Amino acid sequence: MAQAREGSPRAVARLITLVENADPALREVMAALAPHTGHARIIGLTGSPGVGKSTSTSMLVRAYRDQGLRVGVLAVDPTSPFSGGALLGDRIRLAEHATDRGVYMRSMASRGHLGGLSWTTPQALRVLDAAGCDVVLLETVGVGQSEVEVAGLADTTVVLLAPGMGDGVQAAKAGILEIGDVFVVNKADREGADVTVRDIRGMISLGDRTEPGLWRPPVVKTVAERGEGVEEVLEALDKHRAWMEQTGTLRQRRLDRAAREVEAIAVRTLRDRMGDVRAGRGLDELAAQVVDGRTDPYAAAGTLVAEI
Amino acid sequence: MAQAREGSPRAVARLITLVENADPALREVMAALAPHTGHARIIGLTGSPGVGKSTSTSMLVRAYRDQGLRVGVLAVDPTSPFSGGALLGDRIRLAEHATDRGVYMRSMASRGHLGGLSWTTPQALRVLDAAGCDVVLLETVGVGQSEVEVAGLADTTVVLLAPGMGDGVQAAKAGILEIGDVFVVNKADREGADVTVRDIRGMISLGDRTEPGLWRPPVVKTVAERGEGVEEVLEALDKHRAWMEQTGTLRQRRLDRAAREVEAIAVRTLRDRMGDVRAGRGLDELAAQVVDGRTDPYAAAGTLVAEI
Repeated sequence: MAQAREGSPRAVARLITLVENADPALREVMAALAPHTGHARIIGLTGSPGVGKSTSTSMLVRAYRDQGLRVGVLAVDPTSPFSGGALLGDRIRLAEHATDRGVYMRSMASRGHLGGLSWTTPQALRVLDAAGCDVVLLETVGVGQSEVEVAGLADTTVVLLAPGMGDGVQAAKAGILEIGDVFVVNKADREGADVTVRDIRGMISLGDRTEPGLWRPPVVKTVAERGEGVEEVLEALDKHRAWMEQTGTLRQRRLDRAAREVEAIAVRTLRDRMGDVRAGRGLDELAAQVVDGRTDPYAAAGTLVAEI
Repeated sequence: MAQAREGSPRAVARLITLVENADPALREVMAALAPHTGHARIIGLTGSPGVGKSTSTSMLVRAYRDQGLRVGVLAVDPTSPFSGGALLGDRIRLAEHATDRGVYMRSMASRGHLGGLSWTTPQALRVLDAAGCDVVLLETVGVGQSEVEVAGLADTTVVLLAPGMGDGVQAAKAGILEIGDVFVVNKADREGADVTVRDIRGMISLGDRTEPGLWRPPVVKTVAERGEGVEEVLEALDKHRAWMEQTGTLRQRRLDRAAREVEAIAVRTLRDRMGDVRAGRGLDELAAQVVDGRTDPYAAAGTLVAEI
C-alpha cells in the first residue's frame, strides 16, 4: 500500500485487482487509503464510439503531464463482461505514455460484477486518488445508462461529439445536456463541425441551465489527433473547477458520490447476508411456500428481512 | 380482486398498474392472490428485432384459444423507459384478439423501475396466473441481459430466430444456447432457413446438453404469418413441459424464480429503509466523513447496515 502511495504501478495494479475481484482484503485497504483521498480531480470523458475518446484522453494526458501533474486513466467498458476487452485495442493509442511513471492506465469491465460500474469504479478511483494522482481521467463509451453513471462519478464530465453524428446527438439530447459540464466537438476539421457546435449551443440555451449563477457548459472544438484545441479544453475544465469550488458544487457532488458509494456497499453487504440465509435454507423454504401458494412474495420477503 | 380472478380485463389491468407503480396496496393484493397462483404455464418468447416475435405470439395465442385455454400476453420492452412504448405498435398485430375475453394483453416497460424486469415482471405474471390464465406468453426483445432475465422468469423459453441473421446468431451463441428450451426458426420460407436450423442444431450438439436424461432443445421451422409450423411448436412445448414435470425441473425452476423474487423484494425493502436513514441524515453524515477522509466507504457502510 505504501508502494501504491508512492506511485508504484504494480502496487496500484494489485489494489485495483482487489477491487475488481471484490476481495475481502479491500476493507482494510480502503480504511488505510481513506486519509489520503480527496486530492485528485476526477474528469469523466464520455461519447459515442468513433468520436475519438482515446485520442482525446491521450491529448489531455500529455497536457497535464506537461504541467508536471500525475495522471491516472481509468477506462471502463460497460459493454464488455471481460476486463480489458474492447477498450484494450484503444489503449494502444495511449502507448506513448506507457513508459511514463507519472501516468497510470487501467481498463476495467463493468458487467459481471454485482452493481457494475456503480460499485467497482468509485473504488478504483479512490485507489488512484490515494496513489497520488493529481488528475484522473475516467473514460467510458457512451452507451445508455453508463454515461449517466460516469457523470455521477466525476467532478467534471466532458461529453465528446464529432461532426456528422447528428442523429446520435438528437437521440441523446436530453441525456447529454444534463450530464455534460463541458462539450467537446472533436474532429473539428471535418465538415459539419460548426453545425454540431451550433446544435449543442442551441440545445444548451433551450435547457434550464442558463439562469444567472448556474453553469453554462462551454462548447469547445478540437482536433485531438493534432492536439488542436487542447488549451481551450484545459481552460474550460479549469473554469468549471473554479465555478464548482466557488459555489460549493464540488463538495456537494463528492458528498452525493460518497453517499451512493456507501449505499452500494451496504446493499451488497445485505445481499451477502441474504446469501447466508439462503445457504441456511431460509430462503429456499420461503420460496417453496410461495410456489405452493402458502404465502406471497411480500410476506416472504418480510420474513427474510427479519431474519437478516 | 374477485373480478380479476373472474377474468375482468379492467380488474386485471388495475392490478398490473399497481405492480408498475409499486403501489403499497400490492402487499395485500399479493397475499390475497397467493392461493390462486401456480396454475399458469409461463412461456417466454425472445429474439432479436425483426424475427417476428409478435406474429409468433399471435400464432400461439390463436392455437391455445382454439384449445379453449385462457391466454395472457405480457410484452416487456427492456429498451423503453415508457410503458407501452416501442412494442405498442406491434400490439396492433395482435388486434385480432382484442375483443376476445379469453385473451389478456399488456405491454410493460422495465426501465425506470428499481430492479427493472426482475422486479415488476414476476409480479405481473403472478397477477395473470391468479386471474385464471392457463398460458401466459412473456414476450421480450432479445437485447443483452433481458433474454437471460426472461429465461429466468419462464417455465419454458422459446428463442426465435430468422434466416439471414447469422451474425447475430454467432454473436449470441453462448447466450441463446443456455437459455433456449425450444428454438424456432421463423420466416422459414426465406432463403437460408435450413442453414440457420443446421447452425443451431450444430451449436446444440457442441454444447454440453446432449447427455442422456438432459433436455435437447428441438429446432422447429415456422412461417408465423401463415400459421405454418404451429403444431410442431405446440408439440415441442408440450414435450418440454412433460420432461420438466418428469424430472422435477418445473418445480425447481419455480422454486428458483420464487427465491429470486423474494430476494428482490427484500433488497428493495432494505433500500427503502436506507432511504429512511438517509432522510434522517445518517447517510449524509457518513458521506461527509468519507469525503473528509475520516472514514472509508466500507466502514461507513457497516455503520449504515447496523443502523437499519
